[in-house]
Amino acid sequence: MRRIQVSTQSRSQMVNITGQVQREVQASGISEGICVVYVPHTTAGVFINEGADPSVMEDMENTLERMVPWNGPYRHGEGNAAAHVKATLVGESVTVIVEDARLQLGTWQAIFFAEFDGPRSRSVWVRVIQG
Amino acid sequence: MRRIQVSTQSRSQMVNITGQVQREVQASGISEGICVVYVPHTTAGVFINEGADPSVMEDMENTLERMVPWNGPYRHGEGNAAAHVKATLVGESVTVIVEDARLQLGTWQAIFFAEFDGPRSRSVWVRVIQG
Amino acid sequence: MRRIQVSTQSRSQMVNITGQVQREVQASGISEGICVVYVPHTTAGVFINEGADPSVMEDMENTLERMVPWNGPYRHGEGNAAAHVKATLVGESVTVIVEDARLQLGTWQAIFFAEFDGPRSRSVWVRVIQG
Repeated sequence: MRRIQVSTQSRSQMVNITGQVQREVQASGISEGICVVYVPHTTAGVFINEGADPSVMEDMENTLERMVPWNGPYRHGEGNAAAHVKATLVGESVTVIVEDARLQLGTWQAIFFAEFDGPRSRSVWVRVIQG
Repeated sequence: MRRIQVSTQSRSQMVNITGQVQREVQASGISEGICVVYVPHTTAGVFINEGADPSVMEDMENTLERMVPWNGPYRHGEGNAAAHVKATLVGESVTVIVEDARLQLGTWQAIFFAEFDGPRSRSVWVRVIQG
Repeated sequence: MRRIQVSTQSRSQMVNITGQVQREVQASGISEGICVVYVPHTTAGVFINEGADPSVMEDMENTLERMVPWNGPYRHGEGNAAAHVKATLVGESVTVIVEDARLQLGTWQAIFFAEFDGPRSRSVWVRVIQG
């Protein structure tokens, strides 16, 4: 298992980690298979969407906030219940096909770490499976 | 990596691709493992749900539209921000167990390509991993 | 493929199945790879989130209910359309990295079976892939 570190600067932030994941794929020495990108946190997630126009990520954050408002109502005493729900909506892992030691992403796709309760220092785990 | 082509006819459309994915599993020659179905687009996704009653897919489309309305407010200039958000909510991949060269789906389950910004000509990528 | 049985007691219920999945990982005899946990139903799902404070799961259920209310409006005649939509929002599978024959979960993470149309007797399928 390989590890990536991500530092976030605000409560909600989408961080493009495609380059870091690609480096771990090459370091694994596996050229054909799948790559699992896994977030071991409960108030952050990972997803794949457009990496070209930053306004898409702004809309993603704002729309999730309208769907799951920070100020509840919630029961969880820590005050970050919305972050837990958002993490489950986007998911804690993505699986990408690997060919020729490269992540096979669509033209406009990038892998985003989704921070929902930052700023924090976060980990992302990567595992490449041959096949 | 194997490729499926999907042609969609309307802006929002759920296309049952179970048969096409099953054909790729058989063509792979792998009888035991997992099958990753991956959508390389940023305004479309893939999910598994009921394939028997078409009204379930109608409710799926309408409920997602109530949650993430096409007309925003959004910043993204192309006008399809809602499609990007819906794609992330349903996800860009599914992983299905394979046994005896067959996708192991529940009785009522089918694999759906989720178009959120059609009509378009789309690709779906399939990778079967032995194990 | 290994099978877990889950009995739910109410319409909406999040059941921590981490221990049962871990037992199947050990029974598989595979110490390094990934574990796919798959729900073969269309009104239930599986996700990973906080297992320590039960109020997080209460907030998860209530927030999903506000986003996708049971009483619609929906077309599906069986009356459980909301359960189908919630199942797709949380997803029908999770993939977890395995090392030393143990699920690699974050400190606060647990695997939850998500019942959205109970009470019912449910199955969860587990497949461990070496690599």
